Amino acid sequence: MDQNLNDTIALLSRTPLVLNASLRDLPESWTTSNEGAKTWCAFDIVGHLIHGERTDWMPRARIILQFGESRPFDPFDRLAQERESQGKSLPQLLDEFARLRAENLDALRALNLQSNDLERRGKHPALGVVTLSQLLATWAVHDLTHIHQLSRVMAHQYQQTVGPWSAYLGVLHCEGHSS
Amino acid sequence: MDQNLNDTIALLSRTPLVLNASLRDLPESWTTSNEGAKTWCAFDIVGHLIHGERTDWMPRARIILQFGESRPFDPFDRLAQERESQGKSLPQLLDEFARLRAENLDALRALNLQSNDLERRGKHPALGVVTLSQLLATWAVHDLTHIHQLSRVMAHQYQQTVGPWSAYLGVLHCEGHSS
Repeated sequence: MDQNLNDTIALLSRTPLVLNASLRDLPESWTTSNEGAKTWCAFDIVGHLIHGERTDWMPRARIILQFGESRPFDPFDRLAQERESQGKSLPQLLDEFARLRAENLDALRALNLQSNDLERRGKHPALGVVTLSQLLATWAVHDLTHIHQLSRVMAHQYQQTVGPWSAYLGVLHCEGHSS
Repeated sequence: MDQNLNDTIALLSRTPLVLNASLRDLPESWTTSNEGAKTWCAFDIVGHLIHGERTDWMPRARIILQFGESRPFDPFDRLAQERESQGKSLPQLLDEFARLRAENLDALRALNLQSNDLERRGKHPALGVVTLSQLLATWAVHDLTHIHQLSRVMAHQYQQTVGPWSAYLGVLHCEGHSS
């Protein structure tokens, strides 16, 4: 479907609530366990989403609006959360994500983007020319990718515990494409 | 990890909140769109979870405790929601699911199961012998399977809209194993 900015914002505004409902005060056996070496637990995923709020989505939207294709986006650091989350608790990260997301959506609404703005073009350092519409749709689908990953990481902890039912539980057969 | 009944209940108790945060009052473009013929939209998924609360998890737990392996479980109807959700709104389904889940978790806690109870055995009509522990772990992972599916179904609606970023968005490359 086409980009509908109100629909995109509706989805983006719910993600902090979804993560809060999923994770706050959940036993650590669910939130600090991952899928093995060099994979992410729930805590890592929330840290990654925070870094995106700080450095990816709205900063890139502003680069498109200000510089167009003449200035490529800064590359995104997929491992920044290893530094930035240190010493923080999961509830602190959930609060930080909710605050940053709310601020970013306020800033997005304040831009009062029109449909011709959505067709403005920027330059991704690896993907080449992209539009503002594609960037904003990607912001929403990136949230969904990590909710998808989160459900898979938590399910992984009970992979053996479900016994023969594992054959019927699709989330246990996801090949980790969304890490 | 081993079955920890408190951890399982902690996860099961959050699913109505997760679905509520994800879906209530979200534009219908997200909640009534599926992945193509014979696939499920968000509305169908919530209906399927309701049918599980009515006929699958606690009824099967009671069959194990009362009859052991001597009485196989009744087969589960994966398409019941097509009948049962007719004429209802998504907010009604979300309310119904939350009520049934809360009642079922109250009933589960009231059983006051001990670790030897969790090893009691029942008979699945297709999978053969299963334990109460496996059944309760499956209840939780079944929730995660459908949250995993829900994120994939919603992401699918923006598959084209994200443009070249689709290469980086794992949820768009999930092969539908959790439908």
